[in-house]
Amino acid sequence: MNVEVVAIGTELLLGQIVDTNSSWIGEQLAAAGLSSHYQTKVGDNPDRIRAVLQQAIDRSDAVICCGGLGPTQDDITREIIAEVMGVELRSDPAIEDRIRAMFESRGRTMPDNNLRQAMIPVGASAIAQQPGTAPGLVCPLTSSDGSAEKVIYAVPGVPYEMREMVEGTIIPDLRSRSGNPGVIRSRVLRTWGTSESALAEVLAERIEELDAAGNPTLAFLASGVEGLKVRITASAEDSDAVEAMLDAEHAALEPLIGHLVFGIDDDNMEAVVVKALTARGLTLAVAESVTGGYVAGRLCAVPGASAVFRGGIVAYNPEVKFDLLNVPNGPVVTEDAAVAMAEGVRARLGADIGIATTGVAGPDESEGLPVGTVCLAVAAADGAIASTVRLPGDRERIRQFSTITLLDLLRRVLTDG
Amino acid sequence: MNVEVVAIGTELLLGQIVDTNSSWIGEQLAAAGLSSHYQTKVGDNPDRIRAVLQQAIDRSDAVICCGGLGPTQDDITREIIAEVMGVELRSDPAIEDRIRAMFESRGRTMPDNNLRQAMIPVGASAIAQQPGTAPGLVCPLTSSDGSAEKVIYAVPGVPYEMREMVEGTIIPDLRSRSGNPGVIRSRVLRTWGTSESALAEVLAERIEELDAAGNPTLAFLASGVEGLKVRITASAEDSDAVEAMLDAEHAALEPLIGHLVFGIDDDNMEAVVVKALTARGLTLAVAESVTGGYVAGRLCAVPGASAVFRGGIVAYNPEVKFDLLNVPNGPVVTEDAAVAMAEGVRARLGADIGIATTGVAGPDESEGLPVGTVCLAVAAADGAIASTVRLPGDRERIRQFSTITLLDLLRRVLTDG
Repeated sequence: MNVEVVAIGTELLLGQIVDTNSSWIGEQLAAAGLSSHYQTKVGDNPDRIRAVLQQAIDRSDAVICCGGLGPTQDDITREIIAEVMGVELRSDPAIEDRIRAMFESRGRTMPDNNLRQAMIPVGASAIAQQPGTAPGLVCPLTSSDGSAEKVIYAVPGVPYEMREMVEGTIIPDLRSRSGNPGVIRSRVLRTWGTSESALAEVLAERIEELDAAGNPTLAFLASGVEGLKVRITASAEDSDAVEAMLDAEHAALEPLIGHLVFGIDDDNMEAVVVKALTARGLTLAVAESVTGGYVAGRLCAVPGASAVFRGGIVAYNPEVKFDLLNVPNGPVVTEDAAVAMAEGVRARLGADIGIATTGVAGPDESEGLPVGTVCLAVAAADGAIASTVRLPGDRERIRQFSTITLLDLLRRVLTDG
Repeated sequence: MNVEVVAIGTELLLGQIVDTNSSWIGEQLAAAGLSSHYQTKVGDNPDRIRAVLQQAIDRSDAVICCGGLGPTQDDITREIIAEVMGVELRSDPAIEDRIRAMFESRGRTMPDNNLRQAMIPVGASAIAQQPGTAPGLVCPLTSSDGSAEKVIYAVPGVPYEMREMVEGTIIPDLRSRSGNPGVIRSRVLRTWGTSESALAEVLAERIEELDAAGNPTLAFLASGVEGLKVRITASAEDSDAVEAMLDAEHAALEPLIGHLVFGIDDDNMEAVVVKALTARGLTLAVAESVTGGYVAGRLCAVPGASAVFRGGIVAYNPEVKFDLLNVPNGPVVTEDAAVAMAEGVRARLGADIGIATTGVAGPDESEGLPVGTVCLAVAAADGAIASTVRLPGDRERIRQFSTITLLDLLRRVLTDG
């Protein structure tokens, strides 16, 4: 089954907004085993929207239209879909009530403009999920030659509204139309500490075995400074069966890549670290030079971090390292200096564990060391460990890579990984 | 003149990569006064690429194709363009030499695969800019009915390679083909401290005047936590004339929005602050609670920051504020506490100026204050100023907005803005 995506809005063509919606929808379609061959962006022009929509529904089985469902005269997606379906628009009293209730709950009166949003093509139905004032639509139609049942979905361009509708209604509806109405689900294993090609090599044999069988499948997603994602996708008759398949494949991958996996699905490195500290009742302090606040910044992004994170010292100038962290005078991009920083910040802030970064982010080399040289340390009551890495990329990437590499080092210390 | 963008690559449809290239190209086309009505993404499939490309060149005057110029069998953009032009591919010895020299300069031998990259359609020419191994192409052709001269450009999908070619060759070539070969240039005034609607209101009259005349023009771009951009675009016969127009319009806007402008073009807030400190020979230290390292992190992102930035203290736990920054015991989300933090970090790190943030990022309220309440302070030898703001959004946005708001406060102190 082929599903096409059409994103509507002049602001997308002008580059005022990057069309992340189509990419996200493409990812969901792929994960659901649905093909997608084209994605098109078109401006707020009726003739061009009609041409794009007509072509899309002619060459594909289903089309997801994103945008143009607002209350203004510019929002013409509803009208064009009705034209392509060859039907009239009519007001849907249930949608009208829903929109009116939404305004009332905010203590406001509904402007008449919003009544436009309750006008839907005859034969279409509203999507149950409606987080905003714009209703999503399911619009079934017959192909021009009368031979096939097709469908156009319309969703708003606001990302969280769109996502709720795609996940809640469109993907299940497409799965059901494709004659494969079972449950499809993915689990993402998040890894850090290896290259894409090394991971591919380790998994090559397993991927071949799975490809031969067809279900479950494995896919890779490179996420830059967030590491590499390995996605297991399985389909089965019901939730229990699909979870059992995911568990089985997850277990099969454990001996191959378990030592690289730091989290599952939406876990990020800082959340995993905060969770591990919380579970062990340990507090943390950070001393940063090359990362200059990035490590602390990421830890503080985790809700609840305040229970374990005491704070940090950004010792950018070497004098601050000597004065405030008791680093011995001398070169500051060494493992000894990193350990001294970690021990210094641990003592100064009264934390159980201290961690530190010092290195050369460029653009120029420093202390005779090339750009990308970074020393990392973790210090606790019973001792310290340090590590030196050589990171690729520009100043920003070196700082970002240093940050996650240090957090991963701490994670391994905490979990004996 | 209508210019269409076609992005080629299955990874774009699968959502493994977000197509930021098309958005960026759309922005450049708009700034150059060229229309763009469609942008299409298509996978690495010859029939579908051919169909998309043929349709694009039939309905538009020019097409920019992005991706599929690599050395592998999957990279078929060159072949398809030759088919659409109705010509053969032939090897271009000059491109071959260029690619070979590129490998030799890195001490490597060119794999035979890369010879594919020197095969170009007869009648096409290589784009002068070639930062990688993939040459860009300019492929002139005549429309199917023989009546019009059209052009297909091919550029690699690697963003920095693509950008160099679009800026260096494609936009000037399109301008010249459009019969308007003069110089078009933009200047972006970057503002902080007001809402989009307030800025629109202040500029409404001026925009109307300019729209009536048509050159120069004004446009808005909202950039979230980076503020609002006001872009002046002018076209004229030569560089001197266009710069004079930009200067004149910039001067005309000064009384309206000058107090909101913190930078020009690619200036960001942290770079502006580092520059202002450097010019005045002042050093800086940062005390952060709610921002938890973001302020230090942004300052350290500026190359050369080490000359003025001494470092910072992330006083996340209140005890760290009391012990290390000498904040008096008591509530910590107050202007007094912010001032004490700024003075404390200034003294502790031996800096000329100290700045500080303390506030409530959520998810829960704190000290009886609602989420989004943030106190900011700047302290110098001759005194301190503080300010309290109430910021919208979730935890991350509150922390990001706090960061730029504090940097802007410092900027105003430094520049008497």
